[in-house]
Amino acid sequence: MILGNDPVLLTPGPLTTSPATREAMLHDWGSWDTSFNRMTQSVCADLVEIVHGQNDYVCVPLQGSGTFAVEAALGTLVPRDGRVLVPNNGAYCTRIIRILQRLGIAYVELALREDEPVTAAAIEDAFNGDPRITHVAQVHLETSAGLLNPLDEIAAVCQRHGKRLIVDAMSSLGALPIDLRRGGIDALVSASGKCLEGVPGMGFVIVRRELLEASEGRSPSLALDLHDQYTYMQKTTQWRFTPPTHVVAALRQALDTFIAEGGQPERGARYVRNCATLVDGMKALGLEPFLKPEVQAPVIVTFHAPNDPAWRFADFYAAVRDAGYILYPGKLTQVETFRVGCIGAIDANELHNAVAAIGRALVALGLKVR
Amino acid sequence: MILGNDPVLLTPGPLTTSPATREAMLHDWGSWDTSFNRMTQSVCADLVEIVHGQNDYVCVPLQGSGTFAVEAALGTLVPRDGRVLVPNNGAYCTRIIRILQRLGIAYVELALREDEPVTAAAIEDAFNGDPRITHVAQVHLETSAGLLNPLDEIAAVCQRHGKRLIVDAMSSLGALPIDLRRGGIDALVSASGKCLEGVPGMGFVIVRRELLEASEGRSPSLALDLHDQYTYMQKTTQWRFTPPTHVVAALRQALDTFIAEGGQPERGARYVRNCATLVDGMKALGLEPFLKPEVQAPVIVTFHAPNDPAWRFADFYAAVRDAGYILYPGKLTQVETFRVGCIGAIDANELHNAVAAIGRALVALGLKVR
Ligand SMILES: Cc1ncc(COP(=O)(O)O)c(C=O)c1O
Ligand SMILES: Cc1ncc(COP(=O)(O)O)c(C=O)c1O
Repeated sequence: MILGNDPVLLTPGPLTTSPATREAMLHDWGSWDTSFNRMTQSVCADLVEIVHGQNDYVCVPLQGSGTFAVEAALGTLVPRDGRVLVPNNGAYCTRIIRILQRLGIAYVELALREDEPVTAAAIEDAFNGDPRITHVAQVHLETSAGLLNPLDEIAAVCQRHGKRLIVDAMSSLGALPIDLRRGGIDALVSASGKCLEGVPGMGFVIVRRELLEASEGRSPSLALDLHDQYTYMQKTTQWRFTPPTHVVAALRQALDTFIAEGGQPERGARYVRNCATLVDGMKALGLEPFLKPEVQAPVIVTFHAPNDPAWRFADFYAAVRDAGYILYPGKLTQVETFRVGCIGAIDANELHNAVAAIGRALVALGLKVR
Repeated sequence: MILGNDPVLLTPGPLTTSPATREAMLHDWGSWDTSFNRMTQSVCADLVEIVHGQNDYVCVPLQGSGTFAVEAALGTLVPRDGRVLVPNNGAYCTRIIRILQRLGIAYVELALREDEPVTAAAIEDAFNGDPRITHVAQVHLETSAGLLNPLDEIAAVCQRHGKRLIVDAMSSLGALPIDLRRGGIDALVSASGKCLEGVPGMGFVIVRRELLEASEGRSPSLALDLHDQYTYMQKTTQWRFTPPTHVVAALRQALDTFIAEGGQPERGARYVRNCATLVDGMKALGLEPFLKPEVQAPVIVTFHAPNDPAWRFADFYAAVRDAGYILYPGKLTQVETFRVGCIGAIDANELHNAVAAIGRALVALGLKVR
């Protein structure tokens, strides 16, 4: 354990942050003060750079959790008479549909299994089947199961058909390669407390400047109006409403750590090592991942629960928590599962220890795994 | 200075917090974990208690800044065919109008000067003039000038006429007495980083349970749906979307400090001492408050800028900042002013020192005050 007596969070945000990131919150910042506003600007500039959006894209930070930024992107960027294709392979895709319903925006659901990535061909079929589709809202990494959708192919087919693409990259940005220079992506949404390893409390949208500038007055919400947030910030350097100053300071430090680690390639490589350590160790205990390796993202792994009538997630959770590790419940609709995150300021040793703790919990609870 | 080399924030949130409050953010918390969810529950219970809302009221926390909670309250609690009276004596009242415009809810503006509190008689006239009015959206303490509106009288007239009352108590809750047992108030909105002296990053709405329960499916926003947030929390003890865990932990500590200080009466008394020290000191320098003493709340004071053609707020700000104090710009539309907050983890000594620093800045900049 790296944190004294605090449990290690094997959850996909909030996650275990580094002591330096938390210590960045030991200061107070004035929201009008230049030193704070420079910090915001440098955070936004770094976020755009991580996904290679130089020149054509801007980053608009937004107070609140990631969902607030997803809703803000949809409500600001999609015209009321747009029609949005939503490939659906999990709870976060379903949440996008719920948001579109509230906004009164038409959508087409492309239903998939929770272990089935969308394909460019399926998206193309949907375009051909309904030419009124104007946008695609795509979850990059469906955290419900830990499933990776093929972003490059999706972006390419959207570009070919002239459809706008809004990507929920909540649990992928920073860990998986995303390159806006390849074209086809109009907006990327993510948050402070995921693979960038900040603390939760703000989201952000990296969006094609032109598209954002053309969306004045469209948002039905004042608080979630990205255009208003952007233009105010351009004019004043300040956030429109009181910023989560300590969360921003923590994200600044987390980005410094990210850059020092080697950016996305090294962050991703560490998570791959974490994930491999986790999956290998769990398999040795007899616990099988829900997803096939080729569609498993190295961020969170869903495991089948032990096939034992005595299994109760709450007991298992409590036993593993007592050993210092916090797991995550499953989020699948059909199968009994639980999840283990491999992101945060942790390395493969931590996952080794977590697997050992899980093994001891199985024994202590008398659970048979096969 | 109480914070090593950090400047003291004489701003109405973010403000200077106590070291203990900031140190509460040195831990990470799992959003699914019981220890965190107990913390949320205890925070909500304490918030209801501060305003004496026991039994009939519930507290719904919401990610984001205070404005997000104001919009959530209006969008969730006011029916689409409602009509909202907005007594307007400043920028935060105007913001409520902008929110209502976005939501497509009818409103009646009761225009006032920025130094003129609303009266119960004026509200009653408005009710009589337009019987279609269903709600009043009232800012308790208009932070633009620091103006106090007479909440008890407003609540009484609303109750007498059977109108619903939603109060923006952003910069008053915790500092000024608010007693829900007196009746007439349906919802109170405030945030973590104001007079409770937490860090910014979450708002909350204390609302009559019955009213909230009757508002299912009304919010046009998913993220800002208070009913959905409440019912999910009731069912699971968890926040609907990722909570700002560190902000919640800081608010828990800030509330412990608040209770240890003696609650609202003592918090308010300290701010009164701070405010008196500030106003007396500034007057001695020749700087006059914008508001009359009887309508001045002890939270933030607006001062007339020195009547000198050489006055530039940016220079003054920079000079005072170099001495370790962060001021706030004026927010009035007609007169040149600046503002000084008297809230946060600071006492009268701090205000003494701030006044001295302001005096030195005037001399250094060669500004004549009369
Ligand atoms: C893919 C994805 N989208 C959206 C969200 C929602 O983010 P939040 O919980 O911060 O609102 C999450 C949260 O984990 C996520 O993983
Ligand atoms: C009276 C009042 N209402 C609303 C707000 C808005 O709060 P926020 O800036 O957190 O969105 C403020 C902020 O200072 C305020 O003083």
